[in-house]
Order: sequence, then C-alpha cells, then structure tokens
Amino acid sequence: MCTAIGLKTHDFYFGRTLDNEFSFGEEITVTPRNFPFRFRFTGEMKSHYAIIGMAYNKDGFPLYFDAINEKGLCIAGLNFVGNAYYKNCTHEALNIAQFEFIPYILGRCATVSEAEIELKKINITNTPFSAELPVAQLHWLIADKENCITLEVTKKGTNIYDNPVGVLTNNPTFPEQIGRLNDYMHLSNKPPNNTFAPSLELEVYSKGMGGMGLPGDLSSQSRFVRAAFTRCNSVCENHEISSVSQFFKVLGTVEQTRGVNKTEDGYEITIYTSCCNAQKGIYYYKTYDGFSIKSVDMNKENLDGCELIKYPVK
Amino acid sequence: MCTAIGLKTHDFYFGRTLDNEFSFGEEITVTPRNFPFRFRFTGEMKSHYAIIGMAYNKDGFPLYFDAINEKGLCIAGLNFVGNAYYKNCTHEALNIAQFEFIPYILGRCATVSEAEIELKKINITNTPFSAELPVAQLHWLIADKENCITLEVTKKGTNIYDNPVGVLTNNPTFPEQIGRLNDYMHLSNKPPNNTFAPSLELEVYSKGMGGMGLPGDLSSQSRFVRAAFTRCNSVCENHEISSVSQFFKVLGTVEQTRGVNKTEDGYEITIYTSCCNAQKGIYYYKTYDGFSIKSVDMNKENLDGCELIKYPVK
Amino acid sequence: MCTAIGLKTHDFYFGRTLDNEFSFGEEITVTPRNFPFRFRFTGEMKSHYAIIGMAYNKDGFPLYFDAINEKGLCIAGLNFVGNAYYKNCTHEALNIAQFEFIPYILGRCATVSEAEIELKKINITNTPFSAELPVAQLHWLIADKENCITLEVTKKGTNIYDNPVGVLTNNPTFPEQIGRLNDYMHLSNKPPNNTFAPSLELEVYSKGMGGMGLPGDLSSQSRFVRAAFTRCNSVCENHEISSVSQFFKVLGTVEQTRGVNKTEDGYEITIYTSCCNAQKGIYYYKTYDGFSIKSVDMNKENLDGCELIKYPVK
Amino acid sequence: MCTAIGLKTHDFYFGRTLDNEFSFGEEITVTPRNFPFRFRFTGEMKSHYAIIGMAYNKDGFPLYFDAINEKGLCIAGLNFVGNAYYKNCTHEALNIAQFEFIPYILGRCATVSEAEIELKKINITNTPFSAELPVAQLHWLIADKENCITLEVTKKGTNIYDNPVGVLTNNPTFPEQIGRLNDYMHLSNKPPNNTFAPSLELEVYSKGMGGMGLPGDLSSQSRFVRAAFTRCNSVCENHEISSVSQFFKVLGTVEQTRGVNKTEDGYEITIYTSCCNAQKGIYYYKTYDGFSIKSVDMNKENLDGCELIKYPVK
Repeated sequence: MCTAIGLKTHDFYFGRTLDNEFSFGEEITVTPRNFPFRFRFTGEMKSHYAIIGMAYNKDGFPLYFDAINEKGLCIAGLNFVGNAYYKNCTHEALNIAQFEFIPYILGRCATVSEAEIELKKINITNTPFSAELPVAQLHWLIADKENCITLEVTKKGTNIYDNPVGVLTNNPTFPEQIGRLNDYMHLSNKPPNNTFAPSLELEVYSKGMGGMGLPGDLSSQSRFVRAAFTRCNSVCENHEISSVSQFFKVLGTVEQTRGVNKTEDGYEITIYTSCCNAQKGIYYYKTYDGFSIKSVDMNKENLDGCELIKYPVK
Repeated sequence: MCTAIGLKTHDFYFGRTLDNEFSFGEEITVTPRNFPFRFRFTGEMKSHYAIIGMAYNKDGFPLYFDAINEKGLCIAGLNFVGNAYYKNCTHEALNIAQFEFIPYILGRCATVSEAEIELKKINITNTPFSAELPVAQLHWLIADKENCITLEVTKKGTNIYDNPVGVLTNNPTFPEQIGRLNDYMHLSNKPPNNTFAPSLELEVYSKGMGGMGLPGDLSSQSRFVRAAFTRCNSVCENHEISSVSQFFKVLGTVEQTRGVNKTEDGYEITIYTSCCNAQKGIYYYKTYDGFSIKSVDMNKENLDGCELIKYPVK
Repeated sequence: MCTAIGLKTHDFYFGRTLDNEFSFGEEITVTPRNFPFRFRFTGEMKSHYAIIGMAYNKDGFPLYFDAINEKGLCIAGLNFVGNAYYKNCTHEALNIAQFEFIPYILGRCATVSEAEIELKKINITNTPFSAELPVAQLHWLIADKENCITLEVTKKGTNIYDNPVGVLTNNPTFPEQIGRLNDYMHLSNKPPNNTFAPSLELEVYSKGMGGMGLPGDLSSQSRFVRAAFTRCNSVCENHEISSVSQFFKVLGTVEQTRGVNKTEDGYEITIYTSCCNAQKGIYYYKTYDGFSIKSVDMNKENLDGCELIKYPVK
Repeated sequence: MCTAIGLKTHDFYFGRTLDNEFSFGEEITVTPRNFPFRFRFTGEMKSHYAIIGMAYNKDGFPLYFDAINEKGLCIAGLNFVGNAYYKNCTHEALNIAQFEFIPYILGRCATVSEAEIELKKINITNTPFSAELPVAQLHWLIADKENCITLEVTKKGTNIYDNPVGVLTNNPTFPEQIGRLNDYMHLSNKPPNNTFAPSLELEVYSKGMGGMGLPGDLSSQSRFVRAAFTRCNSVCENHEISSVSQFFKVLGTVEQTRGVNKTEDGYEITIYTSCCNAQKGIYYYKTYDGFSIKSVDMNKENLDGCELIKYPVK
C-alpha cells in the first residue's frame, strides 16, 4: 500500500511512500528527451519531455512508480487492488497499456489541464508488460503546482476527480476516501474547548488534544485521513530545506514500521519515501533503513540524450 | 455490569440499570420505619427512615441493589470487581457488613452531607450474608437533590469522591472514569464546524455529527462516557411524565441488548431499569421484556409499619 | 433522521424510528382493500392489498412513513436529503409520484421479488403532494421475510441494492454505509483477546469490551453501524413478546434523546418507534414520552372496507 | 511534550523525542568520570560513572534532558505538568534538586536495581537551578537492558512503577496511561477477522486494518498508546543499522509535525529525536529539519577527564 501527496510551499512538491514487503530493485531514473518510448499500440514517441522518477527498469523500459517531468507535471501510481479494472484494447480509443501510462502522459503533457485532455482520449489497457509481470491494479494522483486530480478506472468506467486535498492512498475509491473526511471535520490543530458538558470542569491535560479521534493505524482509509490532516495543517518556511524536511514529516505520519503490518509474506514496510521539487526537477528520497535523505537533480544531467540515466537506490 | 445516574429536573430523580445474565428474584421492597434491622456488629436499628428500592429479600433481610429513603437520599451499589476490597471487622471503627451498607445509611441519614459524616466512621466489612451469598464487590453512587458522591473502598483505603457528573458504572476506579471525559471534551450536541482543514469543503451530511467519537459499546468505561454525555445534554419539561420518560431515555443509551454482550454464562442484558422520584418517593421501573413502565409509590404504603412490603417485579 | 430495520425471529419483524423535532400528526392507518387510491399519473387503483402503517393523512390520502401489507411486504421511507433526486414525469416510464410510492408498491406486490419487477418499470417523480407539502427526499428499505433491498434514486439514476444487513439510516448512500462496516469487522460480542502485545499483561476489566470502537453518536453513519452490530448479534426467544421486545431494544440503541442532537429548530428526538409483525399484520409502536408499547392489529379490522381506518398515536 | 522508549534488539537502545516550540540550545554532552558535580545539598561528587546525553549547559552544569552512563543505565525526564510535585528539602532524606536527579543517579548507579535503592532514600526537591530557570515538572523513564521503571513524584508521594511496555509520555499518571492499553487489546498487526457479524460478507480492503482504532493524534495519551503498539510489534534485524533505524521509526510514529499542534506560542514540533545504544555508549540523534542521523560515541572521548565535552546539535 502507499500514500502520495502534493504540497505547495514556495515551490510545488510531490512524492509518495512505497509500501511493500520487499524492494523491486527500483532505481532513480532520468529519461532524457530523446529516449525513444516504444508504446505497444501507439508506436514510438521519439522525443518528449524529460522525466525523472523512481522506476523498475525492465528490458530497457522504465516502469515508473512515480515521476515528474521537466515542466513540473507529476504522477504517482498507487495500488487499487480489487477496484481497478482495465479493458482490452479497442478501436474507438487511443490504447495505452497500463504500464505505459506515466511515460505517455509525462512525455507529452506540461500541465494537469493538458493531461485531462489526453485522459479523455485514451483507453488504459490490461496489457501485461510481459508474462512475468502481470498488470498492476493502480489508480493515479496527477498534479502540477496549480491543480491536482485523481484518475480511477473501474468496472464503472473512467473517472477523473478533482482532488482538493492533494492526497491519495489505496482502497476504497477516491469519493469514499474524501467523503470520510466529513467525519473528522471537528478535529483541529488547536486545543479543544469543552462542548461536552460546559457545567463540568474538564481539563486540557496535554497539547495536541484537538486532534483526538484522528486514526493512527496503517489501513489505506486511515492513512488518507491522517495524511490529509497533517498536510492541510502543515506549516513550513519558504525555503528548500524546510519544505523538503516538512514534506518528509507529512509522509512520516503514514510511514509503515516493520512489524506493525503483518502480511502473509512478512511485513509491509515503507521501502522508500520520495519528494520531488516539481519546479526544480530534484528527486529527494530516503529508504527504510537509510540514515539520510539523498537526491538526484535532473537538471544536472544531459536531458537531450537518448539513453536512460539510472541511479541505484542507496 | 450496571449504570447509575442522578438527574435533576423539577424534582430529583435517581436510578440505575442492573445488567446481568439472569434475574436474582428481586422485588420492589418498602422497608417501613419500624422494621427492625438487625445488623451484625452494631445491633438492632429499631426505627429509622422508611426506604423503597429494589432488593433481593433473603431470610427476612432486604438486600437492596438501589434504594431511596423518605428524605430523598439515594444509594445504588454497582459492581466493582477486582477493585473493591473490604477488610475484616476491626475494633477502631463502626463495622458495617457490606450487605448492610444501604439500609444502614438510608436508615439514619437524610442527606449526602449526613452520609459523609457516617462514612468517615464506618468500616465496611467483608462479612458474607451467608455461606451461599459471598460478598459482592461494589462501589456506590450516593446522591440527594443537592449533592452527589461516589464511595470506593479498595486496597488503598476508603475514598469519597465528589461526583459532578452524576454517573457511575463499574471499573476502572472513579477518578479514571471521570478523567476519561477530558478526551471527549470536544464532542457537542451541535453540528460540527470544519476545523480539520478550513480550505476544504467538508459537509455536515447528517444531524448529530457533533457527537462523533462518542463510544457506543457496552464496556463500563464507554457506558460511563455515553451516559455522561447524554445526561449532561438532556433536556426535558418540568413535569413528572417528561422527567421520568427522559430519565429512562438517558439510561436507554446504555441498555444491554441480548446477544451483544456474550459472557461465559450466556448474555448480559439489562434485567431492569429503575427511576426514583427521590422527592416524591415513587419507584418506577421496567424490565427487559416489559412493554411498559410500572411504579410503586412508597407514600401510599403504611410507612409506620414493621413488616417489609414487597412487590414482585412484573 | 431515522433508522429502519428488518429482523427475523419466528416471524418477520420490520420497523423504524422516526426522528424529528416535532410530530407531524401521524396516525396508525389501515387502508382496506377497497379504498380507492387515486394516483396522479396512473389513475385509480380500486382494489389492492390491505395496508397498515404510520401515515400523515392529508386530504383523504395516507402519506405513509412506513407500512406493511397483508402479504407481509414492508416499506419504510427514510430521509436522504442532498442525495435523493427525482425526475419529472416522462413518457417512457410508469410515473409514480414520490408520495405515492409506498401505497403503489404495497397495493400490488406481495413480495420483494414482485416489487423489484415493478421498480424497474417506474419513474418516481418529483411531484409535490400539494403546494404546502414539498417533495420529501427519501430512500427506501423494502423487505419481506425472505429478502431485503434498498432503493435509491439519485442524479446517477435508480439503484436497487441487496441489503444483507437489514438496516437503513440516511446519508451517505447505501454502498458507502455498508462499506463502512468493513472498518468494524474486528468488533465482537465476546471479550477481546490481547493481540495488541501478547507480552504485556492486559486486562479485560469489564464485560462488553469486545465492542470497543463501536460508534455511539447519533449521525446517520454511526447509527447504521450500531444498529447493524446490534441487529446482527441480537438473540431472542421464538415468541411474540420476546421478539417484539427485542426489536424495540435494537432500535433503542439508535434512539435520539432530547438534548443530545441540537438543530436550528430545537432538538431532534425519536418521535415514534415502530415494529410490525409482518406475518401477523400487527403494528406495535411507542412514542417518545410514552410509558408503554401499544399495538393495532390489522386483522381485527374489516379489511374489505373502502374507508381509511385511523388510530391516533397516544 | 515528549515520548521516551527503551527497545531491546541485540543491544539495548533508549531514546526520546523532545517536543517543544523552540530549541533550548541543547548540546550532546559527555561528562567524564572526574568532572566534579557540585550538588546543592549533598556536596561534591568528585568521580562517578561517565555520562553522555543531551543537555542544556548552564553555568558549567549539564542540565540533562536524557542521558545514559557507561554502565548502560538510562534516564529521560519528560514533562508531567500539573501532576509533578516536589517538596522542600527535608532533614529526613537525601535531598537532590530536581535538576540534579539525572547526574546524581547516573553518576552512582550501574543498574535499575541500584537506582531503585537510591530512589528510596532521596527527596527530589523543588529547588530551582537559578532565578531564570524555574523547576521543571517532570517524571522519569529509567531503564537498563534488563529492567524499566517509571518514577513519579506527586502530591500523593513518590511512586516507582514497573514499566513493562518501555514507553513514557506525559500526563496523565503512568498507571492511567498503561491502564488505557486495555482498551486497545484487540488491535493487532494481523488482518482482522470478521467477528462483527459472521453472516455478512465483510472485506479486508487494505493491509493494516488490524490496527484500526489506534489513536493518531499528538496528545500524550494517544502517543503513549501508539508508541506502545509500535514498539511492542517492532521487528528488526540484529545489527546496529537495522536497530537504530527501527528505533527512529518507532519514535517517528509520535513525531510532531509543524502546524498540527498549535499552541499559544506557535507550533510544537519534535526538536530532536535521540537513540542511545546503551551498551556501546553511542548517542544517535536527528533534528527536526535535519536530513540525516548523526552520532557521538562516548568511548571515543577521554572518559577520565574532568571537563565537559560538548557537541553542538547540527
């Protein structure tokens, strides 16, 4: 399971946690403008916007988990198992295999508005990358510094939702997730007043009691509420260090600690957390056992090249 | 387990639920002024205030669960298993067997203030009524129209607590129970405001959302919080029908429905609910499967008699 | 706001709470078989199944809040404000004004299966009963002894949902309400085990702790969860008194106490609670300040008459 | 407010968060064996165990917030405002000013057992360090690799509690805090089973749902429960990097993000988080805006010196 957020301070930041039992061997991967994307149904995209993100690189193709492009458009794909439903390719639409979605959109769209126009044309297909790599069931958070949307493709069709809270986790569907925030509207970052029974002398015995009722577990619904509350109340200074630090703090509230989330295969942990400065093209990240935040700056690479540039996750 | 409350409208009302797997064969029992109470350590109390309440009558002695006297003093005993601790009889104090406590106090005290003076003198002993009736582990809610206190006797000694909320359930100790209300101080009978994230458009989709976070289960701690919230926000008209009805509504929020609380011996249910008009001496009650509220008015009895007057619970 | 449930013991029972700030002047109303229903679009229904239920009778028409027919089919309409959306009358469908829905279906359908066939034909229209009576925004719980469904008409169209839990309240939509039960799947009527940290000695200090986490407030979402938990764990004996008593207990857990739910106009309270023995045609009810459960047995009336038979609510 | 924990993996680790609106100018401070501690009432302690910890150094005296000694005994002081109550100095006891407590105990005790013997002799006094530094109201977590206790001094006297969970936050008192865990005993790191209503088909729609009900806010009570659940379920590998990383993860679940906890003076944030390897004498820490974990190893210093060795927090 995973959590993605967008956060605007002086710049726009976008990132996510990737929660799983094990690493996929992912790499920070820069796709320069002239790397040829060979799409299954729409042919080759010879030149495009440069992209940086976290990808599992397979057979020369960057299978991006989350990425931004040089224009500041950002996408993260998050598990949506049981709800995601992709159709076969069809004659009526522009067919994009599920695994091609991030490069296709980031390659040609500079903004969320441009992406929305594309989204109306395309059919995300259930085409597997290969026999060993079945189709992931995902939904997507798509954002730039101005707008944020969620894309969900289910049996009921394709839905594009405005995402005013800038948060996405996993199940249930986005309307249910955001609808749940209504139940927490009384939470506050300020100390509570006694409205329980004004005649009783009740005591604010601790700071932070205004948040009482906020869920603390690791389910996707609870992570959504907690990340939303933290992100919406987040305060930081208008410089890079404070913004990046703060971004990691917000995602830190939904980080998965080894042992707390037992699955059949072991324990789900936050394999990595990322934070992109979408305007400057810098990809910050940290790993579960890493003692520090690392970064890769796409603008220090040759973005006019035609080969993928890969940095192993340390 | 059980819940007791006091509630002041135009008159003062006091009552409780008695929750158990089965009935004890209890009867509404009026003890007239000249019924001789033979106490184990303090001898015979030949005349005293008249008392009405629910009792299991054994060998001519009314083992009261809850009762009021003709002066409007009210006591209910509630389970306090694991915390209650009564000592042996001692030479330094006035020894009152645990099962004698309600008649002893109601027999001689007209008010909470008078009861408090007695409480400082007495040692509640661990004397069983008989071999078949071991000592119940109880704590007590004691109230009149002006004051309300809780009495707890534990290994740490005897504690008399002011009880500003007028509610008692079972474990844990009263200070912990009432301290817990701090965690719910933000609840309200009014619709919530959006303090979660004022920039988000959140929706009050239902009436009653101001109470979100109120616990709904049947544990003693949750019943305490729920009864406190309901009682403190209760509104009724200043006449008998509205007051009695309202009192049963408040206790209705902590009533135990058969099946929801499974124990080793079956299901705990609310065997009966009582509501005394402490000023008029009327004992209202209803039973689990009863379709109506019944009542017994002590002032319609000969209170100068010397025999117990018993009404079976219908 | 309101809560409706169906409950099967030896017979099938169906009923609801009606929560509001004030009574509408409703009456237990028996519509005999030959009372002529004059529908706005479909003309006169001269004979039909006999019906008993709670109605506000206006200009000779029974505006039923909840009712059953002589075949044991049951319907209750519950507030669904902000979500309900009825269209104008249309040429393509059988037009039934919203206020005609209960008599139309109960008049001609003996079972849920028959009702489902009708539901696919009809268009519930936004036709007001009169200038003073605007269209209520409702959704419906429809049940017989075998099946239970929910009908919702929103901007997205008409949806008929299987309702395996036999509960309906108000907002949000039924799929969201029932989906929420997943979050409470760990609740139990049994005492909890220590799975928090087996190495710690934790204590079951009270009976009923298996339900910890159950919401206790009066919002429609919390009433849904609480009624579902209580209804699904309900246990009673297979006779009328136990069944009826138990039914009122289940709805008692969502009863609204005056003062706890403050609205602009005063306080929302449970004006009445009903329980129909759907197989015997008996309508039981109690009012907020009523001290007892009353009943009307439709089979003691002349069901072949042509005049409404009305009993004032006491 | 703050949170402290002890955690045993292959070594024993101890540390805390320090939450406040601003930094105190604290420094990692090594007190070598021959630094003379001049205590107010008990005179000079010329030689003692070496100590490392975080301290505000004032007038040549290390006012430790948390520290360990070379024998592996660890102490952290945490806010306990409103409950802590220290007496004047007295003739009957060994008087130790509140601010001397950590150096006094760490200077002379090698284990919790030895500390407990000292604790019974001493009177922690309300002596301020200076006119500008009033007496902090604290309670203490004291641990070694075998044992963990909590020390609280209130109006009711001095209490030493076994602390089987190895967690301390702030108010309320420790018995209340740990008692609260009973209410969460049903939480689990495993997926939940449907015990709500086995007849309903409920869905585990997300990993991590076994923790549903865990509180997510920043109050001291909720941080206690959350840290306890995380610590008790924590799993890591038996080497230094994994242990240290894991320790910071556990405390990360109670870290305070700027903006979420508004106080009169600004926002409470986690100024620093520490983690000591108590057996190796290494003090790891990170600051709110720090991008990495830093460390100071006491065994790389000259521990036989007589001057404080201070490292500024980076």
